[in-house]
Order: sequence, then C-alpha cells, then structure tokens
Amino acid sequence: MRNFIKLIDENLDKFLEEKYPEEIFKSMRYSVLAGGKRLRPVLCLEACRVFGGNIEDAMPTACAIEMLHAQSLIHDDLPCMDNDDFRRGKPTNHKVFGEATAVLAGDALLTFAPQLILQKSKNLDDKTKLKLIEQYCIAAGAYGLIAGQIVDIESEGKQISAETLEFIHTHKTADLFKLSLKSGAIIAGVSEEKVNLMEEIGQKLGFAFQICDDILDETSTFEEMGKTLGKDKQAHKPTYTAIFGLKKARKEVKYLLGNVCDMMSEHGIESGIFNDIIHDIKGRAFS
Amino acid sequence: MRNFIKLIDENLDKFLEEKYPEEIFKSMRYSVLAGGKRLRPVLCLEACRVFGGNIEDAMPTACAIEMLHAQSLIHDDLPCMDNDDFRRGKPTNHKVFGEATAVLAGDALLTFAPQLILQKSKNLDDKTKLKLIEQYCIAAGAYGLIAGQIVDIESEGKQISAETLEFIHTHKTADLFKLSLKSGAIIAGVSEEKVNLMEEIGQKLGFAFQICDDILDETSTFEEMGKTLGKDKQAHKPTYTAIFGLKKARKEVKYLLGNVCDMMSEHGIESGIFNDIIHDIKGRAFS
Repeated sequence: MRNFIKLIDENLDKFLEEKYPEEIFKSMRYSVLAGGKRLRPVLCLEACRVFGGNIEDAMPTACAIEMLHAQSLIHDDLPCMDNDDFRRGKPTNHKVFGEATAVLAGDALLTFAPQLILQKSKNLDDKTKLKLIEQYCIAAGAYGLIAGQIVDIESEGKQISAETLEFIHTHKTADLFKLSLKSGAIIAGVSEEKVNLMEEIGQKLGFAFQICDDILDETSTFEEMGKTLGKDKQAHKPTYTAIFGLKKARKEVKYLLGNVCDMMSEHGIESGIFNDIIHDIKGRAFS
Repeated sequence: MRNFIKLIDENLDKFLEEKYPEEIFKSMRYSVLAGGKRLRPVLCLEACRVFGGNIEDAMPTACAIEMLHAQSLIHDDLPCMDNDDFRRGKPTNHKVFGEATAVLAGDALLTFAPQLILQKSKNLDDKTKLKLIEQYCIAAGAYGLIAGQIVDIESEGKQISAETLEFIHTHKTADLFKLSLKSGAIIAGVSEEKVNLMEEIGQKLGFAFQICDDILDETSTFEEMGKTLGKDKQAHKPTYTAIFGLKKARKEVKYLLGNVCDMMSEHGIESGIFNDIIHDIKGRAFS
C-alpha cells in the first residue's frame, strides 16, 4: 500500500510538470499533490494487479482519476458551493490562488486527466484507451459526479427520501470508486463479467466510505480530519447519520464491507490492499 | 451556412436531451441552445466538407466544440471571473440558475463533449476518435483555453507586451478556431500537411475575429451585441485596440483576412462558407 502511494505521488508530480503559465500549474499541483490517502488510484492499480495486469499500464489512468477527484474537491470547496476554507489541514485552493484561478484549475484538470490516459498509456491499444476515457467521462459528468452534486445541492434543508440519499451517494462518491476498480480491470484485460464484479464492489465500498464520512463529520475533530466538520449538519445537508442515526450508520458500514469480503472470497480475489482498505474504513466508522 | 446552422442546432438539441437531474441539463441546454452564430461548429463541418469528408461524421465533433465554447462562456461570465450579467441579450447562466449550478453545468459540458465524439461518431475508426479527443483536450485545457484565460486575468490593469497579448488571443480565441478546422480535416482523413494548413488558417481567422471583437467592444452598443460593452476598458483589460488603437486594429484584421484568402486560393480550397465568414468579420470590423 505504502509502495503504491509513493509511486502514485511520484507519477502525479511527474505528469503535472510545472509549465507556463505557472500560476495555473501551481494551482493544479497544490491540490493534486496535497497528499491524502490516494484511495482511488490505489484501488485502480490493485484491481489491475489482482487480475494479473501490469500496474505501470494502469498508472496514467490511476493518476487521471486522482486528478478528477482533486478537481471535484476544488470546485466543491468554492464559496458558491460548500464554501470551505480548509482541506486536509491546508487552506483550500481558492483561499490560496483566488476563486478565478481555482475555477480554472478545476477546469484544466477535467481535460488534463483524459489527455493523460490517451498520451501516457503506452502499452494499451486504442480500443482500451477509448473504453477508459468513456468510463472517465461518464463518471465525471452529468450522469456521474455532477448528478450527485446537483441533487445534493437541491436537497439542502429539505427532507429527502432514502432513495434520493442513495442517488447522491452513488454518484457523488461511489461512481469514482467504481471507475477506479473498473478501469483497473479493463486495463488488465479481463472479461466483462469481472469488470461488472468490480463495479459492484466499487458501489458497496463507495457507500461504506461515504457513510463512514458522514459518521466522522459528527464524531471527529478538525485536527483529526484537516477540514471544518459539522458543516453538513449546519447546512442542513442530508447525510446518512441525519436520516438513520449513528447506530444504523455503523451497522450499514459493517454490512456493506462484509458483503465486499464475501464477494471477494467467492470470486477468489486475494488482496491485502483491499483488505487493508476495508479494515481502515471499518476502524474509522467505529472509532 | 443557414443550412449548417439549422443542422447544428437540431443536433445540439438532440445530443443534450433533458434527463434527470433536470436542473443540470436545463442549465447546460440554456447556454448551449442560446443561439449564436455557431461559427466554430460551422468551420468544423465546412473543413470536413471541402476535403471531401461526410459532414454527418463531423457533426458530433462540431457539436462537442460548440459545447466547449459554451462551457468557457458560462465560467467566464461568473462573478469571480468577468462578472457578466448578459450574454447574447439574455441573462447569463449563473443569473438564471445560480452560481453553483453554473459552475457544475460548465464542468459537465467539459466531459460531455469528448463523450459525444466517442459515442456518436459512428463511422470513425478508433485512431481518428483518439486524435480528435486529444486535440479537444489540448485546446480545452492548461495548454489551450485555460492558458489564455489565466494570463488574461493576470494581465488586468497591467501594461503588457504585444507578445503577451498574442499569447492571450492565441489561446483564448484562436485555439478553438484551430481545433474546429483541424478536426474537420482529420475527420475527412486528409494528409498532415493539410491538417497543419487548417491550423494556420484557424490561427489567423481566430486572431482577426478577436481583434474584431476588441473593436466592437469600443464601437458597438448593447442592443447590437447582446452583452455589456466597454467592460474590458473599464477593467483595464489588455485589448488590441487599447495597445495599438482602432486604426491599426482594422488594418490588422484586413491583413490577416487577406492572408487567409491567399492561403485558400493557393491550396485550391473553394468555400462559399469560409468566404462568407471572412466577409462578415471584415464587415463588422469596419462597421
């Protein structure tokens, strides 16, 4: 895991080389290289590895997905969105570079990512590259991340159904987990059945991760999380804990992660890294 | 020309079918279907046609480029950027849908466009699709549009050199003209030499168009243009007219467009539509 993270950090640094105009690359680098658990690119590399693929072939796509994640955080934090001042213990992008540059840095990352898949995936054939870019575009756009975002915003201060919350969590969070795992499998060149299995695991893992995040927003501190907490509650944002309470939330995390473990063993997928991630989410949900 | 515009409008409407969540598709459609001259997609279709290509094959790419153009306008108009209230005589996107939705609609368009090229270009092979998406990403990102935008913002209120102004105009404006013309040529399947010729024509045409826009910002009225004018001057934004004056600006437009005509006749490119566009830009610069 630590080895994967180191490789991902090195590659993100290399791919995002600072060029003219420096200000935009500085702003992109600030958010992309701000650390974090690199969960999504790690999932991508590991999904490729467990199916016998070469992790070097998956590196551009893994980094592209991390860039998409960073993009969504930059725009999420903007004053007109969640208006957050801190992220991972550091001032948010617009606090450092100004709003205009933060908007543009997010925009630039959105198309830098597929460009990376296209230009740097040397051993992949054209069909595979197109498949990866298609999945990327769907996950990033109005059928993916943005769909989750917009319904999330519309739901502020409203009573929403469990179905609507599921829609938000599916698209705002799980879609990137699904994209990571599916892409890894696609790069490894496995059957559609296995790609679909990865999608299902991504959905459950993403849900568990999001519910855990909702739990931590209630139970954690700024020092532990590096961002202002309790804001969802303040903004009357719908969260799993707000609708179902802390107890049911923890039960659901345990249930979903148990499901993922069952699916893995059923299909003979052995991965210390997947196990570590599952263990980590569970540990944080019950901390 | 009118026939092309009608076809483009119909296809944009079809490609951007309203789905759930409606709010994001409404916002995307509001800006993309707001009319306008459809100059960039027309250039794309016509470049494909003059080289013997099928304009149906170019339609998804032409529409994708128009979506990118709309995206750049939505984000450009935001309060943290140019803070414009009107565009084409109508309230800007964030004035109608709010800032958060406007940011997200722009984001959604940025990845919807390559998805369109990828999924709807039925007769193109994988290599051609990848080439088109690569050109799209470069023009949209930190080496293209965004590079122009950021230097434009940094230059506000400053004395800048003619070279810096050229950098801004190249990336902020000419890059989309180049993308349109090159893409059309790529779809028609012509030689690299001809693709490069289209790039050169795009650069000159884009420059002439931008200088003309700078002239109109000084000489036109809100009623004629559908947007608030004189804002560049107010914001001490560098424009061609501010640096070189109206007379030299008009002379340069005439010179650039003459160049384009020479290049076309030298390479045997016969196009009533290109001639109309050239005539129109010249007419507006001298109105």
